[in-house]
Amino acid sequence: MIINSKRFLSNLHELRTIGASGIGKGVVRPAYSKADLAARKWLSKKFSEAGLKPHYDPIGNLFGLAEESSVLIGSHSDTQPQGGWLDGALGVISGLELARMSRENNGPAISVVSFQDEEGRFGVTTGSSIWAGILSLEEADKLIDKEGMSFSSAREKITKVAQDFVNPKRFTGFLECHIEQGPWLYETSHTVGIVTDIVGIRDMRITYKGQQNHAGTTPMHRRVDAYQSMLSFSQLVNERFRNVVTPSTVWTTGHVKVEPDAHSIVPGKCTFSMQWRDGDNQRLDKMEKYKRSTANEVAKRDGSSVEFSKMHGLKPVKMDTSLQNKLRSAAENICPMRWKNIQSGALHDAANIAKIMPAGMLFVPSIHGISHDFSEDTNEQDLIDGLTVLAEAILN
Amino acid sequence: MIINSKRFLSNLHELRTIGASGIGKGVVRPAYSKADLAARKWLSKKFSEAGLKPHYDPIGNLFGLAEESSVLIGSHSDTQPQGGWLDGALGVISGLELARMSRENNGPAISVVSFQDEEGRFGVTTGSSIWAGILSLEEADKLIDKEGMSFSSAREKITKVAQDFVNPKRFTGFLECHIEQGPWLYETSHTVGIVTDIVGIRDMRITYKGQQNHAGTTPMHRRVDAYQSMLSFSQLVNERFRNVVTPSTVWTTGHVKVEPDAHSIVPGKCTFSMQWRDGDNQRLDKMEKYKRSTANEVAKRDGSSVEFSKMHGLKPVKMDTSLQNKLRSAAENICPMRWKNIQSGALHDAANIAKIMPAGMLFVPSIHGISHDFSEDTNEQDLIDGLTVLAEAILN
Repeated sequence: MIINSKRFLSNLHELRTIGASGIGKGVVRPAYSKADLAARKWLSKKFSEAGLKPHYDPIGNLFGLAEESSVLIGSHSDTQPQGGWLDGALGVISGLELARMSRENNGPAISVVSFQDEEGRFGVTTGSSIWAGILSLEEADKLIDKEGMSFSSAREKITKVAQDFVNPKRFTGFLECHIEQGPWLYETSHTVGIVTDIVGIRDMRITYKGQQNHAGTTPMHRRVDAYQSMLSFSQLVNERFRNVVTPSTVWTTGHVKVEPDAHSIVPGKCTFSMQWRDGDNQRLDKMEKYKRSTANEVAKRDGSSVEFSKMHGLKPVKMDTSLQNKLRSAAENICPMRWKNIQSGALHDAANIAKIMPAGMLFVPSIHGISHDFSEDTNEQDLIDGLTVLAEAILN
Repeated sequence: MIINSKRFLSNLHELRTIGASGIGKGVVRPAYSKADLAARKWLSKKFSEAGLKPHYDPIGNLFGLAEESSVLIGSHSDTQPQGGWLDGALGVISGLELARMSRENNGPAISVVSFQDEEGRFGVTTGSSIWAGILSLEEADKLIDKEGMSFSSAREKITKVAQDFVNPKRFTGFLECHIEQGPWLYETSHTVGIVTDIVGIRDMRITYKGQQNHAGTTPMHRRVDAYQSMLSFSQLVNERFRNVVTPSTVWTTGHVKVEPDAHSIVPGKCTFSMQWRDGDNQRLDKMEKYKRSTANEVAKRDGSSVEFSKMHGLKPVKMDTSLQNKLRSAAENICPMRWKNIQSGALHDAANIAKIMPAGMLFVPSIHGISHDFSEDTNEQDLIDGLTVLAEAILN
């Protein structure tokens, strides 16, 4: 075997201990948290030991740099507020092991990266967006997390170790290994997915403002209840999307804040997130139109007012054809009949990096398709097979 | 005129200066705050001047006692965290003025009371609940406010002045004058409302548990989204209640908690409050049945699970018929065509006192129906007319 699977798995398990939480193999390591910063410190030591030069940029993206011209491999080491041990970490530790493997086998030079805030405490794939020039640092600094902390003050935590931004031109291409986070590979017993493209995503917050009032003395027909406006909006959107979407289109409200949030008070304000994803940019446009017009229609009917936050979004992104072909050849060698082409429904750093260099992605299965949850997991043999496909592609 | 309206209004305005805050006639005088204790000290002086014996009980209910057998009139002088100048204070100062009026006109003996913590810093109408024997002192002492202070330590502030509980048997009945806190009297240009009953309340939390998952990779048809279960439940309940409710029935979801509350995660858990109020206990029962069966139906359909918290509740309370009739006769004399029967959608101390003696309530209008807010107010002529109706009822 070309790779050192024992060393690879041992590093993965060691990284998991930093922020380990919850049941199963859960991890709590959100961007800029103590655990996240500790994980990056641990990583920078591992980079040094692997002969790579650790380098933090001003926003906390951590690189392990090989010589001037190299392939870049990585992902992110921050997690969701309640995350799993592989989402992001797998790509970073894969990069680390491949850098060591390539050096030991006289392969090409490999640098490694762990991008910051991929999981969106502040923006959406914040670290790689800024590094790829998609989001300006000035704009990013204004981003606010759920507790009201700004990105600019969060990144002050790493100013002591931060150097300049790394020039992307020193890298010839980018590879990212990731768990699928969906059920398709697992359910069809495939070991590896070669990503053809990453779906586009749009994300915003909608706020209804009604009239805060006494829940006992305000008759139903006199209420302007912000919760009820959210309810009507979500219900109407679900109905209207039926004629717009495909089976792979998704839309989600994952965040809700009702104010003043008391049993005996008719809510005067309700803010909620609305995120939608699809491989077709025109469909994303159409869905946005439906959302905005429906939200306004409900506000008009209810006598409430509606506000939309700035919309974050990313267009659908194609993975580099040449890299796809190399990965496919390797997969056909290592695990014939057990690989397939796949579209990524999740957003990844690779979507940003594809704007500035050739980028490729490889998926391994998620057991029962579960991720962003403590119970996220992948069979170890699949982790090893995925890494072996990448090693084969790199050495050939 | 039987009452001294100048003295009455002057006392009301003077009480308002203790804790005066915010815009308009706002007051901040929560239970056991410095302002609340200062207001009670001021009141006890006023009681003495009116020939009443000031008496604090162990929980800070302040009585102004006439001789052994008397009518009790009052309300509360604590306020909401951001309250108005009349909610509670009107009933106490009305009692004070009526005690003076009755003495001056050789009417029946009148005692006055300001109950403690009607606004629920600790429990729900805490002071009158304990005095009426509905809530034991032992249970009350365990109650905790939002900042973590216990009722038992809050009431230590008045141990120096506290005497025994007053025996309720010395009172022949209870009268409470209060602002309506709803829009009905104001909008129909009525001066006085004779309260027929105080609605019952039921209050619980419902929790849906689904499957937390990635918002990009989990296809819509594979999701068990706890937010969507809440949505379906609320929508179905709104529809089904149409055949159950009357125009005065209300139901409210004021609290919502989605977990893990992130844009990119399909919610695995959603907890929300459901409170409903009606004057008819059988209707409250029927609504509860609908809620429980609908919640279970949605869980079954969605593949989620549903849990109900312990239910808190208060049965509807009828005001004493004889007192209602006396108030109606007086109203017909003082303000013919400008009074009406009315149901109280808000909870009041009278609901507790009705358990131990005949109790009656009189409402005056709230401008635009606003209360629990700095902008709460009532026209002065309505205050005077309301008091005059009470005086007429007492003297006849």
